[in-house]
Amino acid sequence: MSESTPDPDGPVAFQDPVYRAAVIDLLGVIAYGEISAFERLAEDAKLAPTLEDKVALAAMASAEFGKVEPLHQRITEIGGDAFAAMAPFRTAIDQFHLHTAPSDWLEGLVKAYVGDGLANDFYREIAAYLDPDTRDLVVSSVEEGSHSAFVVERVRQTIAADPTISGRLALWGRRLMGEALTQAQRVAADREALSALLAGGVDRPGLDLAAIGRMFTRLTERHAERMAELGLDS
Amino acid sequence: MSESTPDPDGPVAFQDPVYRAAVIDLLGVIAYGEISAFERLAEDAKLAPTLEDKVALAAMASAEFGKVEPLHQRITEIGGDAFAAMAPFRTAIDQFHLHTAPSDWLEGLVKAYVGDGLANDFYREIAAYLDPDTRDLVVSSVEEGSHSAFVVERVRQTIAADPTISGRLALWGRRLMGEALTQAQRVAADREALSALLAGGVDRPGLDLAAIGRMFTRLTERHAERMAELGLDS
Repeated sequence: MSESTPDPDGPVAFQDPVYRAAVIDLLGVIAYGEISAFERLAEDAKLAPTLEDKVALAAMASAEFGKVEPLHQRITEIGGDAFAAMAPFRTAIDQFHLHTAPSDWLEGLVKAYVGDGLANDFYREIAAYLDPDTRDLVVSSVEEGSHSAFVVERVRQTIAADPTISGRLALWGRRLMGEALTQAQRVAADREALSALLAGGVDRPGLDLAAIGRMFTRLTERHAERMAELGLDS
Repeated sequence: MSESTPDPDGPVAFQDPVYRAAVIDLLGVIAYGEISAFERLAEDAKLAPTLEDKVALAAMASAEFGKVEPLHQRITEIGGDAFAAMAPFRTAIDQFHLHTAPSDWLEGLVKAYVGDGLANDFYREIAAYLDPDTRDLVVSSVEEGSHSAFVVERVRQTIAADPTISGRLALWGRRLMGEALTQAQRVAADREALSALLAGGVDRPGLDLAAIGRMFTRLTERHAERMAELGLDS
């Protein structure tokens, strides 16, 4: 990845160095998240009970990885370095995965669905505070593929066959949520520019504390909806 | 994957059930080979010394997986079932990978380059005996991506820094070749239709023993060239 000079005719927003730094941070954390998602899904594919299941997980892994390159390109376009941009987020994301290593195929499926869904909702919330080009890129990077239907079907099938599993998986879902919040707070504390993004700027609206509270309510509600789609309590 | 009826207006070649079975076999073995390549490259990516290296391997893995879907589609189009078509080849390909598990990052790189190159050369040789549509699909499925330049560069760099490594890697290359031949013979013995493909049919040219000998000579020569590109004896 080579560095490039920011386009002087680019969006006004990028003339604010704090905004530019925040966008580079945001694209960096999303990109590293996709790389990690690839790794984890490829790893979980090994636990697949059938070749069909393995191919479905491998397809999800490849789809995640396919989103990395446009993010890297954009970081370069606005004068950043893709690998330097990802570096500050490796610890938090790696810790998240370390603390939520699935013990079996089913936990892997729930994590793929619930964990990615939560991260994607969060990035979509942030996208509202971005310039239009960056917003479009972020929104397209977090689109759920057609693969999530596969996860829902598989998890529901398994619970139907053995309802006693649902208690364990409901706890697992709560653990995923808790660990995600822990690591998100860590990132928010470390990366001032990224946090400042939510607070707004001269020409951008921001969030006050009450609005941040409402955002978390929305994220929690969507998490509960996803758990319900899987047939699980949240 | 759903079954479909063969198009009665399809190529004349497919009216020969042995040819059709052979093509389904061939597409099945290539597709399962790509899935295995994905799994192995994703696994090797974990050994990567840097995030840049990890991303390069993950990109190779995703590229391999991207070739699976067109092969599956084609199998369905000519009236086969994609997963049934892959099933007969799982043992041979899994055994190949089991017997050639890289002990480190460098062995993984050499295997990615030399192993895939060998398989791809073999499928390209077979492609000459196929109807034009199938031939185009096979040739596009075995195209080497732009990623192989990365492998050559990394292996040469490492050998330049520590020339004593090259002896071990040269032996590794021979082991890859030997194991590939062992498993290829196993497949040839098991799958009559696929072997018969090389022998030709009413409206297709085939290979006599002398021609098969020349084909193996070409494969061995290309293997030696690839080893030389890496800076290794073969």
